[in-house]
Amino acid sequence: MSVLIVGSIALDDIKTQLAEHKNLLGGSASYGAVSASNFSPVSLVGIVGEDFPKEHVELFRNRQIDLAGLQIVPGKTFRWSGEYMWDMNTRETRSVELNVFETFTPTLPEGYHQTPIVLLANIAPDLQHHVLDQVSQPRFVIADTMDLWINIAKDSLTRLIGRVDMLILNDGEARQFTGETSLIKAGKKIREMGPAYVAIKKGEHGCLLFGPEAEFFSCPAFPLEDIHDPTGAGDTFAGGLAGYLAANAAGGVTFDALKKAVVYGSVLASFNVEAFSLERLKTVDSAQIESRYDLFRRISQFEKI
Amino acid sequence: MSVLIVGSIALDDIKTQLAEHKNLLGGSASYGAVSASNFSPVSLVGIVGEDFPKEHVELFRNRQIDLAGLQIVPGKTFRWSGEYMWDMNTRETRSVELNVFETFTPTLPEGYHQTPIVLLANIAPDLQHHVLDQVSQPRFVIADTMDLWINIAKDSLTRLIGRVDMLILNDGEARQFTGETSLIKAGKKIREMGPAYVAIKKGEHGCLLFGPEAEFFSCPAFPLEDIHDPTGAGDTFAGGLAGYLAANAAGGVTFDALKKAVVYGSVLASFNVEAFSLERLKTVDSAQIESRYDLFRRISQFEKI
Repeated sequence: MSVLIVGSIALDDIKTQLAEHKNLLGGSASYGAVSASNFSPVSLVGIVGEDFPKEHVELFRNRQIDLAGLQIVPGKTFRWSGEYMWDMNTRETRSVELNVFETFTPTLPEGYHQTPIVLLANIAPDLQHHVLDQVSQPRFVIADTMDLWINIAKDSLTRLIGRVDMLILNDGEARQFTGETSLIKAGKKIREMGPAYVAIKKGEHGCLLFGPEAEFFSCPAFPLEDIHDPTGAGDTFAGGLAGYLAANAAGGVTFDALKKAVVYGSVLASFNVEAFSLERLKTVDSAQIESRYDLFRRISQFEKI
Repeated sequence: MSVLIVGSIALDDIKTQLAEHKNLLGGSASYGAVSASNFSPVSLVGIVGEDFPKEHVELFRNRQIDLAGLQIVPGKTFRWSGEYMWDMNTRETRSVELNVFETFTPTLPEGYHQTPIVLLANIAPDLQHHVLDQVSQPRFVIADTMDLWINIAKDSLTRLIGRVDMLILNDGEARQFTGETSLIKAGKKIREMGPAYVAIKKGEHGCLLFGPEAEFFSCPAFPLEDIHDPTGAGDTFAGGLAGYLAANAAGGVTFDALKKAVVYGSVLASFNVEAFSLERLKTVDSAQIESRYDLFRRISQFEKI
């Protein structure tokens, strides 16, 4: 099966306390699509300006990502600039230029409407609705989001949550969205708003997965010593998760399959933060992925009573 | 095998945002000893004043805890008073009265010197040294500590760390002690200071265990919705861990045994926070412990590739 991914495609300027890089490939759809392409065919929906470097288009094409849904239009590509503090957890947005994204209301191209797995990567909830409206009977819809949309588009986001099978958000956002201090209560409260599954990302502490009938999974974080650039970790997680499901859940999405999908998403995210932009993500191969999946298992398994 | 536990025995006044209780049984040795007694015989070393309620002594006695090392002396018992904020992670110490603890320099009673497992529960490092000096060739020595000792007795604590097999501390303390932001780096740095094993407790996020030859284990946290009183969670963890080792590591402490010990410690701690003081800890039985151990396994296991 294949996965449709809609989200932002950006050129990023990123500063950490150790390095600074400009004009990097970024955006939730870029990270999501390249991550997912490790497992399954991807149909990309996004927009860039005429200034978007050809090499990035080539990167997508080389990953067999279907680009019929990628619009290249006059104007400038969406730009984001941010700085990370010493702890690599706190970040400050320095500037955002929507540019060609401002009026983006995509019409899905031929062949996209029947895509069984849909990842509404982090982007304005209205745009997520707009794309979801055009998909016909998807098997599993995943939405990612961020604090910005909880702040300025909570109603639209709340309606969206009622339409998806799974919501992904981080711990701070889960607390902000529900007003609950306990992540366990927050996860349950979001499930009551619609999605059968909720994944709460906890950065260096791993991820919690909530499912029907009180099903619960605690995914460990990978023990990384050095994080070079956390940008796109969440998008890479969502993409890996969606791609794994597209490749492995033809018979239906079970909690066991979702647990594995969450681990694969975490594996891809752990590679992604090892370098700026998609530099590590675009070179990782399936042997490295499987090997790190196995390492995730070893660090979190313990014997029966 | 049995475990020797030295630490504080206290009367606590505890306030959360929902309730307030006074004159509660507390102290690192109280939590540690009762927790460990679920698995193995315990030899307690501690001191209380004549005001210490008989019922608490009875509680220790009913758990088969050897009280030859418990001094009951003229004066008042050590008292601690604290308040927890809404998030239950932040706490403020309102007052500390050392009382009979001020001059406590215990001489180990007959039969204590050969105890194979030693838990130096959270208390002044000088006192931990003093007790350790009197133990003859212990098989495995565990030390717990807290931010206070890193602040006011770092030299003594550093020397102690060089004498023990395992150090337990929480994430904030590990960062404070090593100056490292990354917990992975912090854990490795502490190991280089002496102890073969280091456990870093992360509260609601579980626990990391570091061992020789880069061995590593990530223990999940139990998904508790309501925490009534976090006091003693760390002491209960350390006690459960030490008690499990005493009962199950006669042939030597392996990393696999320590992983199980960390999970059992976490299981006991998860019960402890369900009620004030030792109210839950003193009623928990082995069937409940085994059942929750099994639950820990289920929430953190996932299938092979």
